[in-house]
Amino acid sequence: MAVDISVQVSVLGLGEMGRALAEALVKAGHGTTVWNRTPGRADGLVAQGAHAVGTVGEAVRAGDLVIVCLLDHASVHEVLDPVVGELAGRTLINLTTTSPAQARESAEWAARAGIAYLDGGIMARPQMIGGPGASILYSGSGEVFDTYRELLDLWGTSVYFGEDAGLACLYDLALLSGMYVMFAGFLHGVAMVTPAGVTARQFAALATPFLAAMTGGFEGFAEVVDGGDYTVEGQQSLFFSQLGDLVDASSDQGIGTEVIGMVEALIQRQIEAGHGEEGFARIIESIRQPG
Amino acid sequence: MAVDISVQVSVLGLGEMGRALAEALVKAGHGTTVWNRTPGRADGLVAQGAHAVGTVGEAVRAGDLVIVCLLDHASVHEVLDPVVGELAGRTLINLTTTSPAQARESAEWAARAGIAYLDGGIMARPQMIGGPGASILYSGSGEVFDTYRELLDLWGTSVYFGEDAGLACLYDLALLSGMYVMFAGFLHGVAMVTPAGVTARQFAALATPFLAAMTGGFEGFAEVVDGGDYTVEGQQSLFFSQLGDLVDASSDQGIGTEVIGMVEALIQRQIEAGHGEEGFARIIESIRQPG
Ligand SMILES: NC(=O)c1ccc[n+]([C@@H]2O[C@H](COP(=O)([O-])OP(=O)(O)OC[C@H]3O[C@@H](n4cnc5c(N)ncnc54)[C@H](OP(=O)(O)O)[C@@H]3O)[C@@H](O)[C@H]2O)c1
Ligand SMILES: NC(=O)c1ccc[n+]([C@@H]2O[C@H](COP(=O)([O-])OP(=O)(O)OC[C@H]3O[C@@H](n4cnc5c(N)ncnc54)[C@H](OP(=O)(O)O)[C@@H]3O)[C@@H](O)[C@H]2O)c1
Repeated sequence: MAVDISVQVSVLGLGEMGRALAEALVKAGHGTTVWNRTPGRADGLVAQGAHAVGTVGEAVRAGDLVIVCLLDHASVHEVLDPVVGELAGRTLINLTTTSPAQARESAEWAARAGIAYLDGGIMARPQMIGGPGASILYSGSGEVFDTYRELLDLWGTSVYFGEDAGLACLYDLALLSGMYVMFAGFLHGVAMVTPAGVTARQFAALATPFLAAMTGGFEGFAEVVDGGDYTVEGQQSLFFSQLGDLVDASSDQGIGTEVIGMVEALIQRQIEAGHGEEGFARIIESIRQPG
Repeated sequence: MAVDISVQVSVLGLGEMGRALAEALVKAGHGTTVWNRTPGRADGLVAQGAHAVGTVGEAVRAGDLVIVCLLDHASVHEVLDPVVGELAGRTLINLTTTSPAQARESAEWAARAGIAYLDGGIMARPQMIGGPGASILYSGSGEVFDTYRELLDLWGTSVYFGEDAGLACLYDLALLSGMYVMFAGFLHGVAMVTPAGVTARQFAALATPFLAAMTGGFEGFAEVVDGGDYTVEGQQSLFFSQLGDLVDASSDQGIGTEVIGMVEALIQRQIEAGHGEEGFARIIESIRQPG
């Protein structure tokens, strides 16, 4: 089935994110029915051409495709369990952030009820939806992904990971983990330089392009991890990367060392286990087997 | 004094980095004298036109400008202390990685001996020297930086931070801290997804552009930190950013939680201190005042 603008879509949940998703559909010309637990949130969308309804059942019946974007996994069940019979034979795309295990549970629930199910993780803030920086990660039914690909692309870059419905959430959480840890590393750097009279903004002006450029190193680490052999030529060894200088310089500036000390500890455990001559990617083994 | 190609430069220390620095000078046409403790390391450079000498004294006398790039602070003193009289009246640029305190000590030592002194921190691997990705951070004598700016730019982008000779090293260590922490965050993400059958390379293909894009958030955090008011509108609050989901998902995958748990702990301490409604940048206070 080719995607066409006549696909009727229903959006359940008009929080910040649900509204952004619905707005992109309305703007593209899709017939869009919207529902929210607390009334009133649909007003702006109705002015743009969406059709607001008062019950979940009405919303489900109006859509070939039902999009759900609620607070969490529990609220998805609360809203959808009562209408499971009406969802049968329809397609459900769940863009609520959940754990991988919860996404798999939803996929099984949908399979039992005869609902075609695709799970998604949104890698964007609501104001980015429809713009070049947004991406949404999907897993679950590949048929649903293929069928509605053009519609999904209205929101941002769509990436599909496979039939295991938990994969998109897992990627989402893994990317967010990387992001929060990077933010902590940046703020540790800020805490190091500010006692010397440097402003955080001056540091950010350097750190932004530097860390962006250093993400170029990920691929090399990934190749080593996939290969499983950390003794790769041309890498800096763990002996070389001992972070005592960074820890000492942090203490000298009078700040805490738990951020950089965390990395030092990962390195140290591998050195103690006899892997000091191996490359930095080896620290993944400290993460996989916590001390 | 305008920089001209007739500036005679001496390079002390022909490790991987010293050789790369010397090679760029030779290629640009500078008269370049080189010295290394262990002989033989100069051979490739001599073939390109460098002049190798057998003693540090000869090297110092041959250069208007003396570049030193040795292992560490102690080796710099070991090499330069015996020739301090001959260095007097000359210019010394120290590109050896040291701590901020050691850089300040070298600057004071140089001032007492009548040596113009500039300290530098190299943000590049040797093979990047002379290419677009290399930058070198400088602090100490602004006059030396201005005088030799064109020559310094042969190695990469030159950035000057001020007369305090310790600043370049401090920036260097703060940027490296951010980098190592980011690498740990990336490898934590890899450890999360690989048990689900995803390869590290597949994850890197997404994480590289995603984390590079997320460095765009540093400036906003920096503005908040400089302003000192973390209760900024439009930011995600610490309550919103509690990382329990990421910690749980890591445990569910059977991996350790010390990387992401480190960030969670920084957030938790601020929430416990009553700052849960404030923005993420607030965690810098957990770093500044360790628990
Ligand atoms: N905002 C972001 O930056 C962002 C980014 C990526 C992913 N996400 C994810 O997108 C989802 C929605 O986020 P949001 O920003 O739109 O959140 P939000 O603004 O807080 O909206 C939450 C929505 O869930 C509804 N809801 C909560 N509990 C409910 C229940 N028991 N029954 C029925 N409806 C219920 C709310 O309805 P009421 O109006 O009646 O309260 C509201 O429509 C979340 O899973 C979030 O993690 C958000
Ligand atoms: N390589 C990088 O990626 C990189 C990046 C940024 C900064 N740096 C910094 O650049 C500096 C040099 O690094 P590198 O990579 O060139 O190191 P390297 O290849 O290990 O070379 C070390 C150099 O120091 C000399 N040396 C050590 N101890 C000495 C002593 N007591 N007396 C005289 N000479 C001594 C060695 O001489 P022998 O040949 O006689 O042993 C050699 O020339 C270091 O401070 C490093 O942190 C390096």
